[in-house]
Amino acid sequence: MSQEPLAPLIKLLSKLPGLGPRSARRAVIHLLLGKENLMAPLAVEMQKAVEEIESCDTCGNLDLKSPCHICTHPVRDQNVLCVVESVADLWALERNAVFKGQFHVLGGNLSALDGVGPDDLRIKKLLERLQKGEIHEVILALSATIDGQTTAHYIQDQIQESKFKNNIIITAIAHGVPVGGELDYLDEGTLSTALKSRRTF
Amino acid sequence: MSQEPLAPLIKLLSKLPGLGPRSARRAVIHLLLGKENLMAPLAVEMQKAVEEIESCDTCGNLDLKSPCHICTHPVRDQNVLCVVESVADLWALERNAVFKGQFHVLGGNLSALDGVGPDDLRIKKLLERLQKGEIHEVILALSATIDGQTTAHYIQDQIQESKFKNNIIITAIAHGVPVGGELDYLDEGTLSTALKSRRTF
Repeated sequence: MSQEPLAPLIKLLSKLPGLGPRSARRAVIHLLLGKENLMAPLAVEMQKAVEEIESCDTCGNLDLKSPCHICTHPVRDQNVLCVVESVADLWALERNAVFKGQFHVLGGNLSALDGVGPDDLRIKKLLERLQKGEIHEVILALSATIDGQTTAHYIQDQIQESKFKNNIIITAIAHGVPVGGELDYLDEGTLSTALKSRRTF
Repeated sequence: MSQEPLAPLIKLLSKLPGLGPRSARRAVIHLLLGKENLMAPLAVEMQKAVEEIESCDTCGNLDLKSPCHICTHPVRDQNVLCVVESVADLWALERNAVFKGQFHVLGGNLSALDGVGPDDLRIKKLLERLQKGEIHEVILALSATIDGQTTAHYIQDQIQESKFKNNIIITAIAHGVPVGGELDYLDEGTLSTALKSRRTF
């Protein structure tokens, strides 16, 4: 078979989220046909990332240094901590640039189905951070899914049981109609949540 | 923004077929979280492919050498040539291992919409190969799309107009009901083609 020398490359690429064996094969052909402009620089950038990027020991972000540039930022609010599931969520909030506090990446959600327990997430690390007493508000920015909300409740329980609970407000991002969303197209869960969480206009 | 040092890597990955900016970002995070087992070997394999893999001058296949191992194979039939659109199609036929002749990769289809003309494909190279007189049958294994069939007809015309037309049979792979396909689920075009191309049972 002619793809034999490329088999390891195809196999590795097929492990990326969004790619399977077939699309990985197509991607490899695409890369090889654009060798100078695409594959060579991609290999270099990847090697560079392997050497330079590390996971922040404090918040779990991926950055050139640990603690990362958010944890060591001179101006960002040290008293508000936003808990997110993944680095992707952290980046999404950073692109948005509305939040100017600290982050904590859990690394996933509690999930009985996938066998993810509290010890698989960075929850203990979160409690250690809170224990230091600097943080006054914990914002739970987790998915509006069953797993996400289970995780949110678990974290709330853990904080409530701790000694430092009195100094910390726990909040959660709002669930409701997405901006630009039409009521007619929304699922019932979102609609009833939006109705229950109504505010004075 | 925390993804800034990774921006070139994300941009390059987003150029792969099947990935966009958002999935490229997710892929990069996935790669970085599996640095040792995924990203490092991927960078190495990619660099290796950049250095080792080349496009076969004769057929257009991607291989460790040019002419490739199919073109130089001691046993394969030198008299039958299968014309395909892409290396992916060549590999698909090779995985199938039914065809034991030579290949010719066009590098795409004629397409007025995408501005792909005869000079953008390896059609001239195909005619040069046929001119040598070794090939007695050309199998057109092109897509059953308008562009694919336009390309097939164009190649047929080019061969008909040539001096060596009398020595070459031109055939095309069959169109019809895919094996395992149920009539009820097929589109009208396939059904009517299958009916028109009926054979004695």
